[in-house]
Amino acid sequence: MKRIHVAIAGFGGVGRAVASLLLSRRNRYRGFYGVDVRLVAVCGSKAGIASAEGLEPNQLDGMLEGLSGPEFVMAAKPDVLIEAGPSNFRTGAPGYGYIGSALDAGIHAIVISKGALVFDGKGLRDRARETGAFLKVSGATAAALPTIDLLEYNLKGCEFVRIEGILNATTNFLLSAMMDQGMSFDDALAKAQQGGFAESDPRNDTEGWDTASKLLILANFGLNAGLAMDDIMVDGIQNVTGAQIGAWKDAGLVPKLIGAITREARTYKATVGVQALPKSDVFSQVAGKNKAIRITTDTMGEIVTVGCGAEPLATASASLKDFEHILMATR
Amino acid sequence: MKRIHVAIAGFGGVGRAVASLLLSRRNRYRGFYGVDVRLVAVCGSKAGIASAEGLEPNQLDGMLEGLSGPEFVMAAKPDVLIEAGPSNFRTGAPGYGYIGSALDAGIHAIVISKGALVFDGKGLRDRARETGAFLKVSGATAAALPTIDLLEYNLKGCEFVRIEGILNATTNFLLSAMMDQGMSFDDALAKAQQGGFAESDPRNDTEGWDTASKLLILANFGLNAGLAMDDIMVDGIQNVTGAQIGAWKDAGLVPKLIGAITREARTYKATVGVQALPKSDVFSQVAGKNKAIRITTDTMGEIVTVGCGAEPLATASASLKDFEHILMATR
Repeated sequence: MKRIHVAIAGFGGVGRAVASLLLSRRNRYRGFYGVDVRLVAVCGSKAGIASAEGLEPNQLDGMLEGLSGPEFVMAAKPDVLIEAGPSNFRTGAPGYGYIGSALDAGIHAIVISKGALVFDGKGLRDRARETGAFLKVSGATAAALPTIDLLEYNLKGCEFVRIEGILNATTNFLLSAMMDQGMSFDDALAKAQQGGFAESDPRNDTEGWDTASKLLILANFGLNAGLAMDDIMVDGIQNVTGAQIGAWKDAGLVPKLIGAITREARTYKATVGVQALPKSDVFSQVAGKNKAIRITTDTMGEIVTVGCGAEPLATASASLKDFEHILMATR
Repeated sequence: MKRIHVAIAGFGGVGRAVASLLLSRRNRYRGFYGVDVRLVAVCGSKAGIASAEGLEPNQLDGMLEGLSGPEFVMAAKPDVLIEAGPSNFRTGAPGYGYIGSALDAGIHAIVISKGALVFDGKGLRDRARETGAFLKVSGATAAALPTIDLLEYNLKGCEFVRIEGILNATTNFLLSAMMDQGMSFDDALAKAQQGGFAESDPRNDTEGWDTASKLLILANFGLNAGLAMDDIMVDGIQNVTGAQIGAWKDAGLVPKLIGAITREARTYKATVGVQALPKSDVFSQVAGKNKAIRITTDTMGEIVTVGCGAEPLATASASLKDFEHILMATR
C-alpha cells in the first residue's frame, strides 16, 4: 500500500487537533484512497519529534527541545506539510519558512495560519506552480465554512459579481452583545475577553484586519485578484457608538462587519466595514460565533452559506478536507 | 486541441438553456481546459438535429421530425450526454433510456431530470461504475443550490449526522403566501397557478413528492444510503389549515416543508413534512422561491446553504458545473 507521509509545523491547539484527527482517520484513508498515512514529524516553535515509521498519539507528548524549524521538518521527507503556527502578517514568520521550503521541494502544503499567505501569497503560489505542489488554504479562510471551495468547485463556470462575508467571529459576537444586551463597545469587549472570545490586544479583530486578511486570501487564491492589503479599505467596529446602535434598533436593522469584494470591469474592489442589514436578510440571522459568505453570480444567482463548528476541531477538519482533496487529485 | 463532443437529450426550456450556455462558454473551455467543445446532437421527444462538426446556436431551430431517441443520440458519438427531459418516477422514461445507453457505452452522463434517478438510481450507478463513466446529478438535486457537492467535496472527511432541506420552491412560496398574506391553501395555490409557480396538477409539489425525490437522490448519491421511495415517510402541505397558520403566527414560528435524513446507527431514516421553526433559525428566513440545505457533521459543526437563481438558467448552469467537474477529472 502506498504510504503518505505527513508533517505538522505548529503544535498549539490547532496543530494538536490536526494530529489527533489525522491519526484517528487512518482507517478511512486506507479504505477510501488505498493509502497508508503516517505522521512522520511534528514540531512547535522550540521542540519536536520525528519518526520515519510514523508517530502514534501517545508519542506526541514526548517532543524534544531543539527539534524545530524547516530543516528538521524537511529531514523527515514528508509528502504533505500541514502548517498550523502563529500568524505574523508583516514577516510571514514562522509559517513562510516552512511553507516555502516544502513547496520548493515539491511537497504539498496545507496552510492554516494566515500570516504567510497575506505576506506573500503570490510568491508562494508561484513557487507551488513551479514544482507542481498543491498549496491549499481552507483552514486560513474561515475554516469549516466553505469559501474558496464555493468559488472553485460548487459555482464552477460562473462569473462572480460580488462576494460578501461575515468572516470574524469576535466582532460578530461583540456586535450581537451590543445590540441584544445594550452593552457599550468597551463593556462587550471586556466581557468577551473574560470569556476568552477576544484577545487581550483585540485590534486585529475589532479594527477589521482579521476580516481583511481572510478577504485578501479569498480574493487572491479564489479569484486570482492580485490584491495587496493596501488595496483594501478597512474599517472595524471600534468606533460604533451607542447612538448608532439605538438608531439601528429603531430602524429594525442589524449591524454586521462585512468584508466585500466587488468586480469592477477587469479588477476587484475590496472593503471591510460595518453594514446595517434588514431582518429579512439571511446575514442578519448570522449571530454570535457564526460566520457566513454570500456569493452573487451571473448564472446561478445568489448563494449564502452560514457555518460554525467548535474550535479547534472545525479548523483541523477543514485542513484535513484539503488533505483529502490532495489524496483525490494524486491517486 | 482535444475535442469534447456533447449531446443534449430533452430540449424544453432547460435543454435550450444548457445548449445556449454551453456554446457561449466555448472560449472558457478552450482557455481553462484546453478542449474544443462541440455540441454534436440535440433532440426533444419528436425532433432533433446532429452535426459531427458541431452545431451553432442558429442551427438549433432547424430540428427535424423523427430524429430522437437513444439511438439517434448515440450515433453522434458524444463524449458527454446531458439529459434534460421530462420526469416520470414510475417508469424513468424517457431519460432512463438515454442515460443507460450512454453509461453502457462509457459516455459520461449529466442528469437534470429526476425520474430515472428515482426509478433506478442504483442500477444507473452500477452501470456507470462498470464502464468508468461519470454520472453527475447536480441539476436534479436543487440545481444551483449545492447539495451533493457539499457532502462530496466541502465537508469531505466528516460524518453526517443529519441533513435537512427546503428543497421545493413551490411549497415554500405557498407557505409564505399563507403566512404573510393570510391566504388559505386553496387561494394561495390558485394564485401560484395563475403566476406560473405551480403546476395545474400541483400534487407532486404540494404533497411532498418532489421534495422526497430530491431527498432520495441526495441520500443515495451523496450518502450511498440505499433508500427506496417507500422507505421515506412523506407528508406535504395540502392539509395545513388556517387554524395551524394562526397558531404558528401567535407562537412566532415559521412553517417550512422540510426533507430530513437522519443517521441511525448503520442506516438512514428519511422524512418529509412541515416543521414550524423559530425566527432565530436561518431556515425561517428562506422565503419565497429560495431553497436551502442544512448539514450537521461530527467535526465541522453545522453548515447552512441558501440559494436561488433565475430558471432555467440556474439549472443549466448547475449541469455545466458538473460538465466542468468532468473536464477537470479527465484532463
